[in-house]
Amino acid sequence: MLHPVDSASCPSIPETALASLRALLGDRFSTAPGIREHHGRDESPFPLTAPDAVALARSAEEISALMKIANAHRIPVIPYGAGSSVEGQILAVRGGISLDLSQMDRIVQVNADDMTATVQAGVRRLALNEAVRHAGLFFPVDPGADATLGGMCATRASGTNAVRYGTMRENVLALTVVLADGRVLRLGTRARKSSAGYDLTRLMLGSEGTLGVITEVTLRLHPLPTAVSAAVCAFPTVQQAVRTAIEIMQSGIPIARCELLDTNAVRAVNRHDQLQLREAPMLLMEFHGSDTAVQEQAQMVEELAEDNNGERFEWATTPETRSRLWTARHHAYLAALQTRPGCRSVTTDACVPISELACNIDHAVADAEAAGIPYFIVGHVGDGNFHMGYLIDPSLENERAVAEQLNRELVRRAIASGGTCTGEHGIGLHKMDFLIEEAGLDPVQVMASIKRVMDPNNVLNPGKIFALALD
Amino acid sequence: MLHPVDSASCPSIPETALASLRALLGDRFSTAPGIREHHGRDESPFPLTAPDAVALARSAEEISALMKIANAHRIPVIPYGAGSSVEGQILAVRGGISLDLSQMDRIVQVNADDMTATVQAGVRRLALNEAVRHAGLFFPVDPGADATLGGMCATRASGTNAVRYGTMRENVLALTVVLADGRVLRLGTRARKSSAGYDLTRLMLGSEGTLGVITEVTLRLHPLPTAVSAAVCAFPTVQQAVRTAIEIMQSGIPIARCELLDTNAVRAVNRHDQLQLREAPMLLMEFHGSDTAVQEQAQMVEELAEDNNGERFEWATTPETRSRLWTARHHAYLAALQTRPGCRSVTTDACVPISELACNIDHAVADAEAAGIPYFIVGHVGDGNFHMGYLIDPSLENERAVAEQLNRELVRRAIASGGTCTGEHGIGLHKMDFLIEEAGLDPVQVMASIKRVMDPNNVLNPGKIFALALD
Repeated sequence: MLHPVDSASCPSIPETALASLRALLGDRFSTAPGIREHHGRDESPFPLTAPDAVALARSAEEISALMKIANAHRIPVIPYGAGSSVEGQILAVRGGISLDLSQMDRIVQVNADDMTATVQAGVRRLALNEAVRHAGLFFPVDPGADATLGGMCATRASGTNAVRYGTMRENVLALTVVLADGRVLRLGTRARKSSAGYDLTRLMLGSEGTLGVITEVTLRLHPLPTAVSAAVCAFPTVQQAVRTAIEIMQSGIPIARCELLDTNAVRAVNRHDQLQLREAPMLLMEFHGSDTAVQEQAQMVEELAEDNNGERFEWATTPETRSRLWTARHHAYLAALQTRPGCRSVTTDACVPISELACNIDHAVADAEAAGIPYFIVGHVGDGNFHMGYLIDPSLENERAVAEQLNRELVRRAIASGGTCTGEHGIGLHKMDFLIEEAGLDPVQVMASIKRVMDPNNVLNPGKIFALALD
Repeated sequence: MLHPVDSASCPSIPETALASLRALLGDRFSTAPGIREHHGRDESPFPLTAPDAVALARSAEEISALMKIANAHRIPVIPYGAGSSVEGQILAVRGGISLDLSQMDRIVQVNADDMTATVQAGVRRLALNEAVRHAGLFFPVDPGADATLGGMCATRASGTNAVRYGTMRENVLALTVVLADGRVLRLGTRARKSSAGYDLTRLMLGSEGTLGVITEVTLRLHPLPTAVSAAVCAFPTVQQAVRTAIEIMQSGIPIARCELLDTNAVRAVNRHDQLQLREAPMLLMEFHGSDTAVQEQAQMVEELAEDNNGERFEWATTPETRSRLWTARHHAYLAALQTRPGCRSVTTDACVPISELACNIDHAVADAEAAGIPYFIVGHVGDGNFHMGYLIDPSLENERAVAEQLNRELVRRAIASGGTCTGEHGIGLHKMDFLIEEAGLDPVQVMASIKRVMDPNNVLNPGKIFALALD
């Protein structure tokens, strides 16, 4: 799988194609080893797997021209945003061109009255929120990294606000997509709902760059709530924290965020972000609404927490302390990595029906403890989604094998509980077998047949999602 | 297009297939004219277009066996639920078998703790709500008719609650689907979110029976709100009612229902359901939440309405009056039909970004008035979705032509406003050209390529959605 970066040669790109690509993009087409290397690694523990070239695109038209060249010469093309994928999605396992959209970072249009925004695919989520705040609006989907909106579409991302506001699935209205053959499609409209034919927009969301290159995204925005309050609550055990989350959901309280951190994760963020959180299993929560609605929700949740032996809520009352708290939560992954210098994280992403959550987490903790691998847990527990991060020394083959075995067992339990192997990270290179285990061979064959008809030369991010031969 | 029901003959079904189908289904396979006729008409103004036979299925296994026979003999198969489609979706434009799933009406499982239910496709929405109410739960999607859940999936239906709870797109977790070749697929899981491969569940939603036969549906349920209050508010003009709806949405008030009725619609429901609503443009609203949340929302909306010259709210305070009000709203379509005996309704279904709604409705009203065709308006205006019903005498070719011309102009304005030709009814026979106008030829060709790869013999509901030749 390793694709070494040993020279400026481009084994998968014939000379004639190189000439055309250079003519198209000038110095925005590069085969320099440093640039290729930069595009050969994401947040997964996979080793460097660099592309043969990197193309910096500035428009859908350029990408259309590039795809025509790549398709004619059967050169793999891997869309690249912020490089923050966690399952190896952007790795050039068959060489080819890393198509970097980070310069397509223009906010095309904000329609404040309709609460929609149209952005180029390279816009990052924090920049988007910065740009729409003055209109009293925000975009809720927030994976840990400051990812690009295009990348978030490609993996059907979610994050801490999904429990109330939904994931990319619920918040994308329309897309511009360049197909393998260079056709540029506009999918969807700015209307909130539609029954007009097959939902190609939703088909593209989560397709991880294998069906088309997403170049523009139209999103639903939400009004900034009048009142926001955030609180942390420590519990004696993970189990009790999870039970509280389950009861919150079952009570129908419209909580905006409901995040679990285990003691290891709390300890890590305390160090990384200089916080003084009590080092115990913890729920981080946020409430959105009017003043009275927020007060009422918080009170109801406080009662549920108390019944589960939760300590008194600690409130983050000012916007600054709130922001500090959530920034720390978003840093949890990086913070955990720093607890073991040089380590990489094998991160699980199971999502289960909420009634199965406590049992799934319990088993996972017991297994990790028994295996003696350092780990941390963070979870969007309101959605039934939790991440175990197994902190492995990548130079020790044995640790990696143990972590992968723990991951496998965790995923099997999740699937047996009616859940999924991936709530928000996608399949990438890492979960191709799990996808077949979860969905069954027939559905995956249907997916593959759609892939084949839309990308007959298998040039769009080949080697991802499918453990089946596509070509 | 008309397919006459003149005998018990089955022109499209060869004798050998007939024998196999009879062996499979016994007397649940029928070619009796009365039964065929019953399956040859929906709520659209299209003339009777009956199938050659009707099959009453009782399981996915039976449907799988039936599909294998139909696929081998290239016999069209049209999934049939409650027959309440409004765009001709269930009409047998190429003959074949109407596959009636109404006997598959079992509620398979209710997981109250997870707020999910799994039902056979023939379960109707009112029966589902009856079955889950005791658990303190409800299913919010409510098209006017008491449709089947399978049919609601097939058209990506929504209704009055979508403004708060979303449409079928947001409320379906998993599906069982029988493909054209008889393979039975289970798509999705009971987890609230997933990034596991292509979203085939969403691809099936809205595919109108052209990609597979939906046999089982797993749904998200929602907790019955602690407090509910409903109100009606009359306005001097449609414009002012619509402005109020727009401002409600822009204020981020989590209103549960926000329905517009014009004077004609109010008059019709008054007569049909013996109500005494003031005969003026009107918003019907419902608020869900805690007691204080509901009070607060209602007060904010009342202030917005007042600023737009709305009259004082009339409250439906008891569950009985509330239920009467919403039943009347759901009867609006039938009520309107009764205002012109023997008429059929050409019903529009445009959905536009909310800021464009007032202007779109204004134009539509002005055009209908100028044309002198009787009409009514109901609208899920919180979503930007509105229905003009042009009440035509089906025996007068000219009226139909005028109504279709009005519809065309209305759709073109909606598309030009960034909206869609269909918010919730689907394409069927009626909007095939509009789909191309709205989406463009390339996206429709991509849809057609998916259709071809999943149903190469074009046996699944042929002649719908696509104005392109598929075979």
